[in-house]
Amino acid sequence: MSATTPAQLFDKHHATLEAAVQAIHTRGYWTPYPESPSPKVYGETANEDGKKAVEACFGRDFVLDQPGQSGWTAPERSPYGVELGVRYPVCAAQALIDAANAAQPGWQRIGPQGRVGVCLEILERLNKRSFEIAHAVMLTTGQGWMMAFQAGGPHAQDRGLEAVAYAYREMKFIPQETVWEKPQGKNPPLKMKKHFEIVGRGVALVIGCGTFPTWNTYPGLFAALATGNPVIVKPHGNAILPAAITVRIAREVLVEQGLDPNLVSLAVFDKREDTQALATHPAVKSIDFTGGNTFGQWLIDNAKQAHVYAELAGVNNVVIESTDQYKAMLRNLAFTLCLYSGQMCTTTQAILVPAGGIDTDQGPKSFDEVAADLAASIDKTLADPAVATAVLGAIQSEDTLRRIGEAGEYGRIVLASKKIEHAEFPHAQVRSPVLLACDAADEKSYMEERFGPIAFVVKVADGAAAIALSERMVREHGALTVGVYSTKPDVIDAMTEATWRAGVALSINLTGGVFVNQSAGFSDYHGVGMNPAANASYSDSAFVANRFRVVQRRYHLA
Amino acid sequence: MSATTPAQLFDKHHATLEAAVQAIHTRGYWTPYPESPSPKVYGETANEDGKKAVEACFGRDFVLDQPGQSGWTAPERSPYGVELGVRYPVCAAQALIDAANAAQPGWQRIGPQGRVGVCLEILERLNKRSFEIAHAVMLTTGQGWMMAFQAGGPHAQDRGLEAVAYAYREMKFIPQETVWEKPQGKNPPLKMKKHFEIVGRGVALVIGCGTFPTWNTYPGLFAALATGNPVIVKPHGNAILPAAITVRIAREVLVEQGLDPNLVSLAVFDKREDTQALATHPAVKSIDFTGGNTFGQWLIDNAKQAHVYAELAGVNNVVIESTDQYKAMLRNLAFTLCLYSGQMCTTTQAILVPAGGIDTDQGPKSFDEVAADLAASIDKTLADPAVATAVLGAIQSEDTLRRIGEAGEYGRIVLASKKIEHAEFPHAQVRSPVLLACDAADEKSYMEERFGPIAFVVKVADGAAAIALSERMVREHGALTVGVYSTKPDVIDAMTEATWRAGVALSINLTGGVFVNQSAGFSDYHGVGMNPAANASYSDSAFVANRFRVVQRRYHLA
Repeated sequence: MSATTPAQLFDKHHATLEAAVQAIHTRGYWTPYPESPSPKVYGETANEDGKKAVEACFGRDFVLDQPGQSGWTAPERSPYGVELGVRYPVCAAQALIDAANAAQPGWQRIGPQGRVGVCLEILERLNKRSFEIAHAVMLTTGQGWMMAFQAGGPHAQDRGLEAVAYAYREMKFIPQETVWEKPQGKNPPLKMKKHFEIVGRGVALVIGCGTFPTWNTYPGLFAALATGNPVIVKPHGNAILPAAITVRIAREVLVEQGLDPNLVSLAVFDKREDTQALATHPAVKSIDFTGGNTFGQWLIDNAKQAHVYAELAGVNNVVIESTDQYKAMLRNLAFTLCLYSGQMCTTTQAILVPAGGIDTDQGPKSFDEVAADLAASIDKTLADPAVATAVLGAIQSEDTLRRIGEAGEYGRIVLASKKIEHAEFPHAQVRSPVLLACDAADEKSYMEERFGPIAFVVKVADGAAAIALSERMVREHGALTVGVYSTKPDVIDAMTEATWRAGVALSINLTGGVFVNQSAGFSDYHGVGMNPAANASYSDSAFVANRFRVVQRRYHLA
Repeated sequence: MSATTPAQLFDKHHATLEAAVQAIHTRGYWTPYPESPSPKVYGETANEDGKKAVEACFGRDFVLDQPGQSGWTAPERSPYGVELGVRYPVCAAQALIDAANAAQPGWQRIGPQGRVGVCLEILERLNKRSFEIAHAVMLTTGQGWMMAFQAGGPHAQDRGLEAVAYAYREMKFIPQETVWEKPQGKNPPLKMKKHFEIVGRGVALVIGCGTFPTWNTYPGLFAALATGNPVIVKPHGNAILPAAITVRIAREVLVEQGLDPNLVSLAVFDKREDTQALATHPAVKSIDFTGGNTFGQWLIDNAKQAHVYAELAGVNNVVIESTDQYKAMLRNLAFTLCLYSGQMCTTTQAILVPAGGIDTDQGPKSFDEVAADLAASIDKTLADPAVATAVLGAIQSEDTLRRIGEAGEYGRIVLASKKIEHAEFPHAQVRSPVLLACDAADEKSYMEERFGPIAFVVKVADGAAAIALSERMVREHGALTVGVYSTKPDVIDAMTEATWRAGVALSINLTGGVFVNQSAGFSDYHGVGMNPAANASYSDSAFVANRFRVVQRRYHLA
């Protein structure tokens, strides 16, 4: 029997919630959403069902029953060359806002537990539909299948649940009511009853990116929802389907619970100005944005009525000072550069290597040897075409294809990008990474984000110079990740202190099955929120605490 | 024996801290700092000692040993007409910032517990010096003695401790380290060690106001300090002494602990441009501001590099729909209007009364009767000149004196302001409140802040119109407090829901010893942070959580 009230949903999911709250306390490994796309876990027909569900959307209207609809639009083009043609409702921003505002009081009324119960039910439904969402993510973003499933499904759900856990913990601290009794010496005490109401700040706008339409959307979506706000999801124009499925599932759960479905809506516009008008609307009180610096900075400068949580571009970098696992280091870095063709906000762009080379367990290696050996390791990673296409996925945008083509202008090509045929998708745009070498002085080459499979081996004076350059890059241009390879504790300490000053997450001597560009829900603080690449982190208390307020009332007690 | 390390200070104050954390969970009455200026609590000579300590500053250099000093300045003029002449060091903003940045790593190194221990020691010292601070507050702000003692001393310390408790709770959640162990089926698990460092965002600037130089300064000061940031305190030019004593005490404690005293410094400038340059300095990452809209909005618009926590002007209002305690209601409102001559950010400015009058336990009262009876109640409150001067204090600024003089232009005078002689301070500027009547349509009169002892009885159509007007005032012009008087549950419910939409704290039917303009630490959420009068609240998680970040590092475990 299904739970028919938000309070029942809270009870249903209570064990998961408590485990999630425990997980954010310990920040060890934990997840309720299995990352293995196994039929044993998700059902024998789950993969086929998910694929069919997505294909059933092709060339059709994606009906959402939202207010203010003026037409349909189908802007997506698949990096795999698949014809999608899904038509999404175009709704007036004002109508979505009015409907969101109308939905808010009912959402406030069910209280923190009710809201959290509904959020966890939505997440459970999303988890059950992981294959469908994975196919949608894969076809719209160009991710390889396994990444689309894991990062687009369970890992994104982890990040959503993590945000709910933080929101719940913060809201739970606030007593619903209290009696305030102040002694007055020999006189009777002053006695007041006080009630504390948790009130969402208002309409939350969550603007998604073209590469991780669920992983980067769920934290803001669920943080805002749980804390009492209606949410308008504005996906990237080329990755609408995963968001649309998410919104539809949320709306279904809301309707089942007797709540107003317009609490969660999808904004798809034909014109960029419509997004800008929505973002600067006085009713919009928070914006979660993942994407480029241009629009991100525009939001920060113009959407002053809202608190903007932004993840922007950066120049992720790795310092190689020395290693006692040379081959494993190269393997690890090579995989990092190949994974989803470097189209992750966490992928390393600049690899800083001393001009005099490095000490390794394979003997000293010159700068040129390190660069050449990394190139060889990339080639080896991609030697099997089936593995290559699975790891690389496809190139998500024309801009990235253009940047790959122009890469030779930025430095000396150590490894050229190759076009790779995809056995299943003949029109897929698959490219191997381009590896460039340049001097530290060539800042204009490597010291701005070159999004995609473009990496630089940068020649620096020595290890200390590498750390100083890394810090400056992070401070001035931002970064979501940095790494260091060294056998010397003092080098690692110096790099550690540099990351404290610059505010960036550090991976040390990664040589195994974890990569600098991976960020695990409930454990890794993604983004930090202290350098130009991001002003917020997934997730911490700061990500949720400012999304609601406490409105009190008080009166005398006799 | 004194505690000689921050860790020992943490142990010394642990019980207080735990009680404070418990208090913010329950938000009932609690304080470790007695509000009674009793010799039994603070010592037989405390009052005299405090007074002498303040008088010893008159006409002298207030030495702080800060870097970059270029001279001295003595801008304060006492509303009580006392010659102060305290000379404060004028230091270059860049020198204070450089010194603050240099002090930060050592402050980070002692960790959350060490920082909290030091903060609690500073607060304890402040508490012991409450009489000294109270005399300084009284003479600079014009507050009456009892308010200066309570609000300037223990209540301000409460707000400081409250901020530390929130900061501690949030920081305590973050584990110093964890082991992340992810199962890999039949293969050995992936295993990583992760360390999480709490890092302050950077230099915090705390800009004080002229009326509550400690109560409105301690929350930001201690929230920023506890979360790992150096703090520059920039007091109002007419209320420097309480801040200077506070900064000196903080620096003394830091030196005793072997820490860099420049972690906390005092900024006093001769020119307004110097404050603006400091506020927009790239190193300044947060600004706590209490004061007028003009400079507050300037900060929000220009200090974009910083997170601004602002408490600005508002139009506090009270709806009177009906009452079953007419005389007690009038007494309560009259005292509210008289206390510190209405120079509190929480004092009611607009009292909304139906044109058809109200039902009371004394029979129906017309609009004019309510206004006249309130005037009479004010007169009665101030009948004894000794009580009057104690309650009213003195007028803090020339601007407020000017506004009192001009008040007749804003409406029909129901009660004129009177100049009152002060027995102890012949040059004190003491004024009784002016009460005006006007129509709801006269928005340009009552619908902007007229700071000081100027209140309006506003004629509205009926109770529903009063609630609607109250809500609109809060939404458009902001408010820190609203009140309602009604015997009807549906009216109180409607007002309650209006305050949820507008985001303002509500006091209901206050007729006893609590007043709408009073806000108790650990219990009342001061400011809410949801309407134009304030974008933050004392205190909640949002007030502290964004002041620090978590910087992680991770590496494989074998």
